[in-house]
Amino acid sequence: MPQLRKDPVLGRWVIISTERGKRPTDFAHPRETRKNGFCPFDEGNEDKTPPEVLAYRAGKTAPNTPGWKVRVVPNKFPALSIEGDLGRAGEGMYDKMNGVGAHEVIIETPEHDANFADLPTEQIALVARAVQERMIDLQGDTRFRYIQVFRNQGNAAGASLEHPHSQLIALPILPKRVIEELAGSKKYYGYKERCVFCDIVAQEVWTKSRIVCENDVFIAVVPFAARFPFEVWILPRTHQPAFETIDDATRLAYAGVLKETLQRINTALDYPPYNLIVHTSPSGELDLKYYHWHVEIMPKLTKIAGFEWGSGFYINPTPPEDAARYLREAEIAGRSDAGSEAGAESGTKTREEVSCE
Amino acid sequence: MPQLRKDPVLGRWVIISTERGKRPTDFAHPRETRKNGFCPFDEGNEDKTPPEVLAYRAGKTAPNTPGWKVRVVPNKFPALSIEGDLGRAGEGMYDKMNGVGAHEVIIETPEHDANFADLPTEQIALVARAVQERMIDLQGDTRFRYIQVFRNQGNAAGASLEHPHSQLIALPILPKRVIEELAGSKKYYGYKERCVFCDIVAQEVWTKSRIVCENDVFIAVVPFAARFPFEVWILPRTHQPAFETIDDATRLAYAGVLKETLQRINTALDYPPYNLIVHTSPSGELDLKYYHWHVEIMPKLTKIAGFEWGSGFYINPTPPEDAARYLREAEIAGRSDAGSEAGAESGTKTREEVSCE
Repeated sequence: MPQLRKDPVLGRWVIISTERGKRPTDFAHPRETRKNGFCPFDEGNEDKTPPEVLAYRAGKTAPNTPGWKVRVVPNKFPALSIEGDLGRAGEGMYDKMNGVGAHEVIIETPEHDANFADLPTEQIALVARAVQERMIDLQGDTRFRYIQVFRNQGNAAGASLEHPHSQLIALPILPKRVIEELAGSKKYYGYKERCVFCDIVAQEVWTKSRIVCENDVFIAVVPFAARFPFEVWILPRTHQPAFETIDDATRLAYAGVLKETLQRINTALDYPPYNLIVHTSPSGELDLKYYHWHVEIMPKLTKIAGFEWGSGFYINPTPPEDAARYLREAEIAGRSDAGSEAGAESGTKTREEVSCE
Repeated sequence: MPQLRKDPVLGRWVIISTERGKRPTDFAHPRETRKNGFCPFDEGNEDKTPPEVLAYRAGKTAPNTPGWKVRVVPNKFPALSIEGDLGRAGEGMYDKMNGVGAHEVIIETPEHDANFADLPTEQIALVARAVQERMIDLQGDTRFRYIQVFRNQGNAAGASLEHPHSQLIALPILPKRVIEELAGSKKYYGYKERCVFCDIVAQEVWTKSRIVCENDVFIAVVPFAARFPFEVWILPRTHQPAFETIDDATRLAYAGVLKETLQRINTALDYPPYNLIVHTSPSGELDLKYYHWHVEIMPKLTKIAGFEWGSGFYINPTPPEDAARYLREAEIAGRSDAGSEAGAESGTKTREEVSCE
């Protein structure tokens, strides 16, 4: 018998196919190959992007020249325009406003062919630091209410350039999903007087069967009512409303658990396309008692998207407990190395410490 | 300057790229070719599906034999199980229930190679009648709260069989999107004392620029805050809460406008994959003053799905007014024929009667 499960934050019911659950090998996808040719994100091509707004450089090299480790530039084809005021207006019964906002690209490494998950933990932490720094800077602009940070891996997930990069969009409105998460977690808080995400962490640590990997600061879990096969959420163990204010130690621990999670996904599913989305508090509301930042990673393995877009009704062919077990059991190349690398500071546990259901 | 537009029902803001709007030819997609081989929906293979629950037959032929015009069968691999009770239960902090429901396939024609949009209007009306009849029957089962009707066209839109078919799923819960639409339209009604969809119809008829086609009973429009390029909604002009109770004349008019809309989409975009979703009232609430049934058609032309799934934040690269103009201007083969075919009963107007902006 299939099972219906309810997301405790959004109230969304999902159908979990418990009987004919799909395994990783059921989700074959074409391996993307490198397209040779010019890449504006490569080192040496700094003049082919808009001028950088931030770069971390090892030595003393000039802006917009080689020598950077992470580089942030405005998107050359931005979805929103940085100039102008909000211009809220009606159009008959409808409401509209100017598309003001910022759209920036975080170039995660000078190495065109690198896979983000295989970068050193310190490099991943540096990317996170660049994102934080840009978020804090953009929050100084009172036109912006939310900074949406995301990473598309692979053409099928919407990435138009293969060079590793993340993006951020500063928005003059709250995205619908953020409004819903805030409303749902506020409602839970009103009833329980506890953060729903803190309760999720406690429940998952106790249940164990949906844990993918963990360290002292973070857990990575397949959510109870996952919409997609092999969806994984990364949550801080303790209450933290906002991503952009995490400190150095937390950031390094985050980089460690993110690296391990993505390595497990890449190993189990043969480097699938995926979308990664940072869920954080709205600008200027960084101390909410009821909201808890987290990251959602959605491998793009199924094609049944359009119907689900339109109805908000999801069928997940892989039970979350099965997906978590496959990810835990994935043999990561150089795992002991990666473990100690992240673990020195953040105490990443190896998968053997996570008991299977 | 891009524009942000708000959906008046859901409150969702969408970014409309007004400056570098994409045209139909910017959305190239592979044309799907027929895979030869066995098809369980073909005439003569009636014993290869579960026994039919409904069929319309021209003459006196026995159930589960050839001679049918439209045939409804249970899905051989259903997402939900028809047997059992709801079994609502907790699992720690979470909520779950048994996956009870019905999952049926409406085989729209015996002709394997037909395109749904090219079927005669009367045949499309017969498909709609079969859907209505199944919905009314399933609503007699008090376990079911909503009947979700949808049609996936093309492999990229999730169709696993190419033989023309629709599907319905009877659900023991309301899909998230339905809950949101009901809440949004109720809120509007509370403020305005009018149905929001009735107001949308009036606004669109007055504005004209987003109309794709229309007849005396229905309009087809690209919505003001369309999420996707070339998204089209079909709405009855007068207040009708539920699809399943429409009468013969209304059904024929619906078939006419649906056929013309899909023909325009097929011509402008070279037979794209798409999802079609019927939005109707919950079971047992078929006389709501604030809700108005409609159909949403979403061509699957872009790849930026995953991010948008996760954030509820959409970027539409084709302004709705441009999309509607391309669809109005599409030259439909045999249009005068199709026009009179649907128009005799329902008064379909030809596109020349719709003035461009």
